[in-house]
Amino acid sequence: MDPFHDITTPTLLIDRQRAMANIAFMTEKARQQKIRFRPHFKTHQSAQIGEWFRTAGVEAITVSSLEMAAYFARHGWADILVAFTVNLRQLAVINELAVRIRLGLLLESIESLEALGRGLNAPIDAWIKIDSGSGRTGILWQDGEQVMAVIEAARRMPNLRLRGLLTHAGATYRQGSAAEVVRCYQESNLRMNELRARLEEANLPGLEVSVGDTPGCTLSPDLGRVDEIRPGNFVYYDAQMLRLGVCDESRVAAVLACPVVALHPPRNEVVVYGGAVHLSKDSLELDGKVWYGQVVELREQGWSSRIPRAGVERLSQEHGILHIPAPDFERFQVGGLAGIIPAHVCLAVSTPLACRTLDGETIQTLARATG
Amino acid sequence: MDPFHDITTPTLLIDRQRAMANIAFMTEKARQQKIRFRPHFKTHQSAQIGEWFRTAGVEAITVSSLEMAAYFARHGWADILVAFTVNLRQLAVINELAVRIRLGLLLESIESLEALGRGLNAPIDAWIKIDSGSGRTGILWQDGEQVMAVIEAARRMPNLRLRGLLTHAGATYRQGSAAEVVRCYQESNLRMNELRARLEEANLPGLEVSVGDTPGCTLSPDLGRVDEIRPGNFVYYDAQMLRLGVCDESRVAAVLACPVVALHPPRNEVVVYGGAVHLSKDSLELDGKVWYGQVVELREQGWSSRIPRAGVERLSQEHGILHIPAPDFERFQVGGLAGIIPAHVCLAVSTPLACRTLDGETIQTLARATG
Repeated sequence: MDPFHDITTPTLLIDRQRAMANIAFMTEKARQQKIRFRPHFKTHQSAQIGEWFRTAGVEAITVSSLEMAAYFARHGWADILVAFTVNLRQLAVINELAVRIRLGLLLESIESLEALGRGLNAPIDAWIKIDSGSGRTGILWQDGEQVMAVIEAARRMPNLRLRGLLTHAGATYRQGSAAEVVRCYQESNLRMNELRARLEEANLPGLEVSVGDTPGCTLSPDLGRVDEIRPGNFVYYDAQMLRLGVCDESRVAAVLACPVVALHPPRNEVVVYGGAVHLSKDSLELDGKVWYGQVVELREQGWSSRIPRAGVERLSQEHGILHIPAPDFERFQVGGLAGIIPAHVCLAVSTPLACRTLDGETIQTLARATG
Repeated sequence: MDPFHDITTPTLLIDRQRAMANIAFMTEKARQQKIRFRPHFKTHQSAQIGEWFRTAGVEAITVSSLEMAAYFARHGWADILVAFTVNLRQLAVINELAVRIRLGLLLESIESLEALGRGLNAPIDAWIKIDSGSGRTGILWQDGEQVMAVIEAARRMPNLRLRGLLTHAGATYRQGSAAEVVRCYQESNLRMNELRARLEEANLPGLEVSVGDTPGCTLSPDLGRVDEIRPGNFVYYDAQMLRLGVCDESRVAAVLACPVVALHPPRNEVVVYGGAVHLSKDSLELDGKVWYGQVVELREQGWSSRIPRAGVERLSQEHGILHIPAPDFERFQVGGLAGIIPAHVCLAVSTPLACRTLDGETIQTLARATG
């Protein structure tokens, strides 16, 4: 009997054993180096997968929105950091959460911090967002003056418990090799410690440093002189991580199973139900071409290794067009399934996709919490 | 009082008057040319917006998935075409719908058609999917032999009511100018009619032709010798349609309102809560640069015209980075809102975004049907 006979729409298949091994790997690495492990839950957005982390001893978590914080708070998590510069328009939900759990928020400007401080009814953990080189958001790590001004302002606000400095070394995702990832991660950590030292000299001691991206935390043997790491992607990994050399295929724990609806042999194209609304349009470059994912064949126990030179070539709203060179093209048939390792799994999980383990357990996610 | 004070998260704002005018324009155009108007509802995915179409006299609709068909069937639509090559794994939901409504499905291979025919418990309308030049999926329009073989096979199946030939001239989206769009649309129609004539000569008369993409249906004064048009995007339009010259700004009926969380004046960057999970990563090219949307300022009655040389430059999961040259940069402040005309509005609507009209009515969508 086909183990996937009940899959009718694009469905994220999760290999529980691999995900558990990925969780154990990162938990153990942090424990050995005596660093708090605060995994980012935006990659799975699932109360059930959260329990796998809890079993491994995790107590503190990271999320990327207040909606996600509220979801995990409902599922018993009591120490949640929202790793996104605070959105002042959500003060009501911030206050609701702040009275129930230990809530961490990110701040980067005095105006914002003062507006937040005036509106809070309960204490929160305040982290100063530092740009250690990724160029997305935060105070530049060289700008010690501005950091000090923000810290001084935070100290005047009764409900802000200043915890420390937080960065996301997002530049690791843009490196070309594993060695460059490690160098980039370590450089970011050195910059954070340079800033911390400067603040200590200015009589502002006791600040923690929170960092963490999957490429750096996976590849760097030394996690650095930091207090907390927050990787998320490592629970599943994806095609971008494979391309960067962050993991090998034996660690990839999530594949999108897509119904095959048409074959176009002259073009070596397989058309699947599984488009931009399921995978998102994040991509990776391989051999000078842009791909939205890599292709595998589904098997009884999971899936094959990547089919060489095959990939998701184009995406429209509901369609995915896979390019599959011969002779592998013959492996696919209308009415069957194709497996796709998403370019960026966190974005696929954010859609209202069906989600289940290889052994058939339905996995609820935030976007499908009521489905 | 700020009319948008209750917007706390990324929210799609809909200008009801403009959307109604867009609906009236296309309804009237089809009526004058005596062509059935079967609008594509994937652009709004909302039962309420559907009612605006019903008021304009629309009775038959198009959707892009069986989930969407089931949603609109629950909301009283009785003639629904799923413009996506049939997914055989969803036979159960096909049969459920086929007994309740007039259901149209797309077929392009004999194997698939026979498998469907054997599984059906009730009749459906069968449309043969033709590739008239877009290169995505369907039988090539020149391949009359294959089309005839599929028609012959369909006639042997009791529950398949053969309706006609269907195409999506998706190449219109890839043209450089309005004139090219019209030429591309008309060429696609000529090809469909050439195929139909060939089938008539082969003693296969009475086939309808269904076409329809927003660029072609908006711009071509003559809709062509077709029986049905299926445009969808025109209800809101978006930045891709503006770039192509399909519409002017006075017709754009949907803007994503995003909370501003940080300002980086040295880089002319505004950071908003509104990322790839809200907008999707579809893009457009302008002046040699890739943008994920264009920026407007929200106003009491709606929004301003596009801010010159401004746009959504980068997207990560929840962050949008807007590039806003001075002096317009001064118009934005932390805690306020920025407006974004999405590159591709259909994809934004497919996410579990909040959605409301300018006058404050909450709009339910399929992805947020229970929210």
